[in-house]
Amino acid sequence: MPGDDPKGNWGRWGEGDERGALNLATADVVLEVARALRTGKVYSLALPISRSRTPAVWDRPPPERFTRTAPQDHRREPTGRPAVGSTDDMLMLPSHAGTHLDALAHVFEGEHFYNGHPVSSFSTRRGASRCSIVCTGTVATRGVLLDVASAAGLPALPAGHVITAGELEATCDRQGVEVRPGDAVLVRTGWLELLTGDASTPSFPQAGIGLDAAGWLQRHDVCLVASDNSAVEVLPFDGGRELAVHVELLVHAGIALLEHAWLAELAADRCHESLLVVGALPVVGATGSPVNPIAIG
Amino acid sequence: MPGDDPKGNWGRWGEGDERGALNLATADVVLEVARALRTGKVYSLALPISRSRTPAVWDRPPPERFTRTAPQDHRREPTGRPAVGSTDDMLMLPSHAGTHLDALAHVFEGEHFYNGHPVSSFSTRRGASRCSIVCTGTVATRGVLLDVASAAGLPALPAGHVITAGELEATCDRQGVEVRPGDAVLVRTGWLELLTGDASTPSFPQAGIGLDAAGWLQRHDVCLVASDNSAVEVLPFDGGRELAVHVELLVHAGIALLEHAWLAELAADRCHESLLVVGALPVVGATGSPVNPIAIG
Amino acid sequence: MPGDDPKGNWGRWGEGDERGALNLATADVVLEVARALRTGKVYSLALPISRSRTPAVWDRPPPERFTRTAPQDHRREPTGRPAVGSTDDMLMLPSHAGTHLDALAHVFEGEHFYNGHPVSSFSTRRGASRCSIVCTGTVATRGVLLDVASAAGLPALPAGHVITAGELEATCDRQGVEVRPGDAVLVRTGWLELLTGDASTPSFPQAGIGLDAAGWLQRHDVCLVASDNSAVEVLPFDGGRELAVHVELLVHAGIALLEHAWLAELAADRCHESLLVVGALPVVGATGSPVNPIAIG
Amino acid sequence: MPGDDPKGNWGRWGEGDERGALNLATADVVLEVARALRTGKVYSLALPISRSRTPAVWDRPPPERFTRTAPQDHRREPTGRPAVGSTDDMLMLPSHAGTHLDALAHVFEGEHFYNGHPVSSFSTRRGASRCSIVCTGTVATRGVLLDVASAAGLPALPAGHVITAGELEATCDRQGVEVRPGDAVLVRTGWLELLTGDASTPSFPQAGIGLDAAGWLQRHDVCLVASDNSAVEVLPFDGGRELAVHVELLVHAGIALLEHAWLAELAADRCHESLLVVGALPVVGATGSPVNPIAIG
Repeated sequence: MPGDDPKGNWGRWGEGDERGALNLATADVVLEVARALRTGKVYSLALPISRSRTPAVWDRPPPERFTRTAPQDHRREPTGRPAVGSTDDMLMLPSHAGTHLDALAHVFEGEHFYNGHPVSSFSTRRGASRCSIVCTGTVATRGVLLDVASAAGLPALPAGHVITAGELEATCDRQGVEVRPGDAVLVRTGWLELLTGDASTPSFPQAGIGLDAAGWLQRHDVCLVASDNSAVEVLPFDGGRELAVHVELLVHAGIALLEHAWLAELAADRCHESLLVVGALPVVGATGSPVNPIAIG
Repeated sequence: MPGDDPKGNWGRWGEGDERGALNLATADVVLEVARALRTGKVYSLALPISRSRTPAVWDRPPPERFTRTAPQDHRREPTGRPAVGSTDDMLMLPSHAGTHLDALAHVFEGEHFYNGHPVSSFSTRRGASRCSIVCTGTVATRGVLLDVASAAGLPALPAGHVITAGELEATCDRQGVEVRPGDAVLVRTGWLELLTGDASTPSFPQAGIGLDAAGWLQRHDVCLVASDNSAVEVLPFDGGRELAVHVELLVHAGIALLEHAWLAELAADRCHESLLVVGALPVVGATGSPVNPIAIG
Repeated sequence: MPGDDPKGNWGRWGEGDERGALNLATADVVLEVARALRTGKVYSLALPISRSRTPAVWDRPPPERFTRTAPQDHRREPTGRPAVGSTDDMLMLPSHAGTHLDALAHVFEGEHFYNGHPVSSFSTRRGASRCSIVCTGTVATRGVLLDVASAAGLPALPAGHVITAGELEATCDRQGVEVRPGDAVLVRTGWLELLTGDASTPSFPQAGIGLDAAGWLQRHDVCLVASDNSAVEVLPFDGGRELAVHVELLVHAGIALLEHAWLAELAADRCHESLLVVGALPVVGATGSPVNPIAIG
Repeated sequence: MPGDDPKGNWGRWGEGDERGALNLATADVVLEVARALRTGKVYSLALPISRSRTPAVWDRPPPERFTRTAPQDHRREPTGRPAVGSTDDMLMLPSHAGTHLDALAHVFEGEHFYNGHPVSSFSTRRGASRCSIVCTGTVATRGVLLDVASAAGLPALPAGHVITAGELEATCDRQGVEVRPGDAVLVRTGWLELLTGDASTPSFPQAGIGLDAAGWLQRHDVCLVASDNSAVEVLPFDGGRELAVHVELLVHAGIALLEHAWLAELAADRCHESLLVVGALPVVGATGSPVNPIAIG
């Protein structure tokens, strides 16, 4: 039976639940963080999207934009008034390129997605009929930046460095913050500054959290983990297990993952607590979405 | 000289400004609304995105999603452990389909976009090099719902109904709210419930604001106008002038427009004031972006 | 064992064969028809491709074209000489829209494609690793037009009309042609003139060949069957069996199918024998390709 | 007046002509070559199309294929019979990637395309309304391979080598062929074997024809020039003039160009004369099309 995995959150919010740990981001959590805001400063955590500026990882196609209507298209008809017209474009975007949010249907283990939803619920034609990005694409909660790189006194953690629970705790202590149920945790490795600062930086290996840190985050009942790297988790995978942290967080615990989050400005301002708002595109059947996450300080 | 249009905001935030009236959505505005939140309830103002559920307007291509990797793709290699794998997709999205935010480069008048930026700054290959969605895609401010349909005692305003300044004022009075500088105003016509409730509803004409209401919004120094219809403005255009309200708000005043906003739930809860957060995809050169706007009550 | 279907061509050209009945279109067949050409007139059998002109069938996305570079993009740099530049575009095409050729991997029965190739050879990520359009996309052979509509004295056969073997024979007799091994047979129903002449013509039902005619074509060892309708076969399917003729011809016999072939001009010229040349796009993994088939009279 | 360029073919086939030198590929030319075929062997001159196998030139996006329907999508409904179903895909193709045919609207000089068609006839929304690939996408004529690389005793001509008229003549002599009005000439440099054989081969510079050879081809009244390189013409452009050969052949003479033609097999067989058939996709408004050109020996 799917629900008997003792480590996970399967069944915790009902048999049919498709929202996972975002159930922990209650209205009370939102109210509390909103009322405690200090600066009102608004941060975008997204990278610009373009073929040249979106990091190329795995073998995903690059994002493309094509103009559909240009100003010149409207110049043809002579009128008494100045010409008026509109422009528009077409976007071709991998759902998991650039700064993006993983749906709970993004990773499976054996025959199941999160909460025991069967992989047979997924079809190529329709995509995910369970746990698609429509279910988890609307997020507002307290965001806690854990700037592990700065805590280590480094601009970026070494390639392949496995962030541990101990490092997360030490970062909390150093910053004077605590992680509470329903929080989104933003783990800063410094890697996105490397990847975007110098296109020749290899995208593999990278620093990121390992299974020990994943367990810590799960025990703290966070609802989402973001990181400024390509997979939230360390590359190569912890212990050599395929998508090890994705399996623990996304599949077992139903914790959403947000990758390629731009955390440099939050870090520069030492804005360790914020109201984090993520509005993913509710594309029916999609397994993720590019996003422009917004943090308010 | 571009800047001498007395009605507009050209030059108000500097000669090179590409952010327009969003300059009015200051940290103070954000702090004030955040601290005054009442429920913490989180609303998504986006429609689901799919070929069948996104309203077909103008001649825009429908949005499409294609699976790039399905669970079956990972079943091939026998291992001791349960198979683990990921799924992903490719999205083909018109930048102005479904619930979307217009960039200030979306409409031009004569040789200029907002603030006198020349149309020659736009190329088919690169798209908008001025006033693209990258400049205005990150929004957080107070959102004021003006539920004009409910104020009129109707589920939806009649097709072609031109909402006036008087109706906006009357709605403010009836709801006991006022519109302040930096606010985003969400004008509810009831039309999106019609369009999505019955696919045979013609998408033309529609109710929406006219030039009189646009002037009122501009005088109140709002930073963004959203509506639950296809163009924010009434269709056919007020006075028969091509894109009349877009020209006044987007081009002259630099006020961002958000179309196909789903306002039914806010209206049902009479949530007239909220923290509105919109994170558009920062696609380099794009003239708009599909969005999942989030309102917090 | 896959190969024991007595009706089919499995195993006939070797266990690993992916080319099917196109093996019958030998150099001798090509030489014979080429040397016997009468007029040298060149016919395109393709429909124009555009969102409005490509028949909408099933739920396939419409084809789209976007300009990537326009002449205005090159006007920026002043030079002594006239500006010189190029234009180009991006095409988004369903592999089976408009006039198109089916790959042998387009249809399966049970666990197998043509020749017993397992469906497990197909993955969402890679597409068809067996029997893709790369294997059957290059065709040259004798094309025999069987103008069944004209033989019946009708502009188009009635909707749902099942073309029989007898009708094919009678058309041969009336036209004074015979069908020989390796021929491509072009079956004219008159339906494409209906579908393209009046956009309100329902695309279902349509006239087309049934199982009896499919058996006749198979016994005559043709290498390809084209028709001026949406599925070569009659809609609804003969005997109510899902893709009945596709299964017999494509899966069992390895006979390629070409749909939406524009046969009106060949018919008007009574050009019943031609050299038919089809060059499908060799897209790795694809299950079909839009084509511009060329017949030479 | 556009038509007074003495070097070109403007006006030669009428003021409104959009077909250019393909007017020279008459039915008589076709009949003559068809009747003179020697082997009936069928050659595909196309490269496989995929992200990894299509040469990356300029900054064109890579071609992509996505599965729309996979066999597993049909497994759901239990029936007495073996499941039957279909697969299909979506193609995203730059019009000028891989083996492709340029439309006459692909290049302009000053305010004009071929035959004086104004660049204002081109819009971003609609693409080319004059001289699109619809006008020149159907080609059948005599194809003459001029294997300049082999004539020079080299596997491939040196990078940047400018092929001259003298080299074309010498190749004719060596091969014992002559170029006649209406012929398509296939100029082999050996470069496509380099580009596809070793992905690290830089795509710039390349060998190709220069202005001298272009003049020779024009004087011989050829209808199309193909080459096994990225631009038919030498890179960098002859004399440093932007698109020099494209301007002479495509714009002035209305001679179609076919790039990335795979000529290795024709060369290996010393098949110097063939029936060349090219069926480009008739995409309304497009400036070119990927093609699978077929030569019959």
